[in-house]
Amino acid sequence: MAELAGNVLVGQSGGPTSVINASLAGIVAEALNHEIIEEIYGGLNGVLGILQEDLIDLAAESQQQIRALRHTPGAALGTCRYKLKKQQDFERVLEVFKAHNIRYFFYLGGNDSQDTADKISKLAQQQGYELRVIGVPKTIDNDLVVTDHCPGYGSVIKYLSTTIREIACDNEAMGQGDLVSIVEVMGRSAGWIAAGAALAKRRDHPHDPPHLILLPEVPFNQEKVIEDVKRILKREKYCLIVVAEGLVDADGNYLAADSATDAFGHAKLGGAGEALGEIIEHGIPGAKVRVARPGLIQRAAAHAASKTDSDEAFLAGQAAVRAAIAGETEHYTVETGLAPLSDIANGIKKLPREWINEDLVSMNFQFLRYAQPLIQGEVAVPYDAGVATYARLDKVRVDKSLPAYEV
Amino acid sequence: MAELAGNVLVGQSGGPTSVINASLAGIVAEALNHEIIEEIYGGLNGVLGILQEDLIDLAAESQQQIRALRHTPGAALGTCRYKLKKQQDFERVLEVFKAHNIRYFFYLGGNDSQDTADKISKLAQQQGYELRVIGVPKTIDNDLVVTDHCPGYGSVIKYLSTTIREIACDNEAMGQGDLVSIVEVMGRSAGWIAAGAALAKRRDHPHDPPHLILLPEVPFNQEKVIEDVKRILKREKYCLIVVAEGLVDADGNYLAADSATDAFGHAKLGGAGEALGEIIEHGIPGAKVRVARPGLIQRAAAHAASKTDSDEAFLAGQAAVRAAIAGETEHYTVETGLAPLSDIANGIKKLPREWINEDLVSMNFQFLRYAQPLIQGEVAVPYDAGVATYARLDKVRVDKSLPAYEV
Repeated sequence: MAELAGNVLVGQSGGPTSVINASLAGIVAEALNHEIIEEIYGGLNGVLGILQEDLIDLAAESQQQIRALRHTPGAALGTCRYKLKKQQDFERVLEVFKAHNIRYFFYLGGNDSQDTADKISKLAQQQGYELRVIGVPKTIDNDLVVTDHCPGYGSVIKYLSTTIREIACDNEAMGQGDLVSIVEVMGRSAGWIAAGAALAKRRDHPHDPPHLILLPEVPFNQEKVIEDVKRILKREKYCLIVVAEGLVDADGNYLAADSATDAFGHAKLGGAGEALGEIIEHGIPGAKVRVARPGLIQRAAAHAASKTDSDEAFLAGQAAVRAAIAGETEHYTVETGLAPLSDIANGIKKLPREWINEDLVSMNFQFLRYAQPLIQGEVAVPYDAGVATYARLDKVRVDKSLPAYEV
Repeated sequence: MAELAGNVLVGQSGGPTSVINASLAGIVAEALNHEIIEEIYGGLNGVLGILQEDLIDLAAESQQQIRALRHTPGAALGTCRYKLKKQQDFERVLEVFKAHNIRYFFYLGGNDSQDTADKISKLAQQQGYELRVIGVPKTIDNDLVVTDHCPGYGSVIKYLSTTIREIACDNEAMGQGDLVSIVEVMGRSAGWIAAGAALAKRRDHPHDPPHLILLPEVPFNQEKVIEDVKRILKREKYCLIVVAEGLVDADGNYLAADSATDAFGHAKLGGAGEALGEIIEHGIPGAKVRVARPGLIQRAAAHAASKTDSDEAFLAGQAAVRAAIAGETEHYTVETGLAPLSDIANGIKKLPREWINEDLVSMNFQFLRYAQPLIQGEVAVPYDAGVATYARLDKVRVDKSLPAYEV
């Protein structure tokens, strides 16, 4: 394919991860190597900033900051949950691209973002504007179809595995046959993250915590869980449960949905851990329940990120640039190479049922063999005055040349 | 004072910390140096195991395991919240001590445990049984009187400072003027832990997160908090709040009222973060609230422990042994040397009011100057197959020689 000279635009979208900035660093670092790329811009807050022509000059950032992005959590460009809907929105995006001679667009995000990238790509084609769009996958949820695994996932399960092992030390010290410790982890539609906590078990120690992993893939069965907890309390003196926030009952209702109303009479959102805790307290008189909900902590815990994951995220960014320059306008994954954007958008990759043990609350060797490689290696995060330090971009603005746009 | 030959008994009590095992390692390592110490025993589950003559032989543990205790969270001997009450209990403890020729008793714990140690010491004196008792302080709460600071505290605030900085990266990426992120941290009666989150701010960046620190020392004022949050949302696009679990209103009622009490009659807590989230959602229509509750994670996060804290905990154990052998039967702290056990038991060290800024939601330079040194240095925790690894004692039991005792 013919060489295409012009500018690069990168955007980040959806929930941040520990390594989405590593992909950004990979894109910037690689783009600098290619002379046909003139400017490297970042769009602030994903498509939201692109619509408003809020662009920054990434080439103006110091090399230290770009390097520090490799271990910085969050999304340094800002992100959004805004979904382009109107045709007018898509046309505005292209108008902005044309105004700044954007010929390469890299969009880092999950399912929705891949869908957005796909639509922009198609509109550009229709209009005969030469544009190469590559979606770079990221999601802690690991549920992007086509991908074997997704940057962001390894780090969240690495952090949680160590955390579960640490809480287990604490629980083991306190347990006197009545301690039930619940850790609610992310995962609305698939149990990938909860399953990953199984890596806290030592090899050949199936009785190691977590004792129960409650997945959205397995409908919640109150009687069974109570029986499981009782049995484990007897054997281990404490019971450590990992529950996915998206746990559902046999009718598909979230466990938390029917639990309680808040002080103002609104239905309480979230809280599968709290709801489960209440159920156990009622079902097992005398049980002492402790609920931890790391919440956003788990997807931002860059100080405990997986080096494998971080490196793959960086490589994904680099490879996306190389592929785009070579003329491939598709979706890149570390293992499977490129896949059409339209294949990946809006699908959800489920945790394979055959990786769940027959007890329905633990993972088998197939899962462990899959997940183990993803958490290998530790990222060396620099500390300053005792606290981990992260990149902060200067965000030098690119001059706007278009009239304002109402979002 | 005359040399006292005999055996050592160590017990751990109360809530575990990241470094209580470092103190245990210090005691064992130091005791091995002194020939007048014959056996080194551990009591399982604090006084509970001692009452039941559940002792293990710590000298039989491998040196690797004792060394690994220096970075292992939890309480390797097990702990308890059991409080000796009956005179019969105290007499049983002495009976066990006599049966095993225990002449040195080291009790690692917080306020309640220091009280227990004090009473045992006094009873031994009354009975003319030569026994040297030293309480080794530990509490993440940092509220032991007499101590300048307490092993355990530095590690919890180091972990939280990095965590707050990480969540802030995430929040900053997502914030569009409506995101309110709440992190509920431990701290029942004093705001030491919540205050420590202030270390997440960079020097000379007072607008860095956490934007609001809500302390038990400052009665909750709903109108003021709503105003504060609105102002910060306007300025920063997101608002990161750290709230102590023990937050109270002007009447002294916990924000999340809960009638349950633990074994010591302290109110059982949980839910200040959720309660605050509801108040904010109600008071600021459109606010998107995210609540994280690290719960036990924060006090077990040994992978992010403070080297200063861990080293001090180890030194406290060593020094306790040296002091006991020299004939000092008191309470040891790293900075202040020894203090009478009866002074430290049951007191609570409050966070000085003059360290809180006039805005009532941030800490001044006096606090930062105090807390900064406590989080310096990182503990190198070994990783195996991608997960942090911790010590597990073999727990070789010491033969029982007394009749069973009903607890």
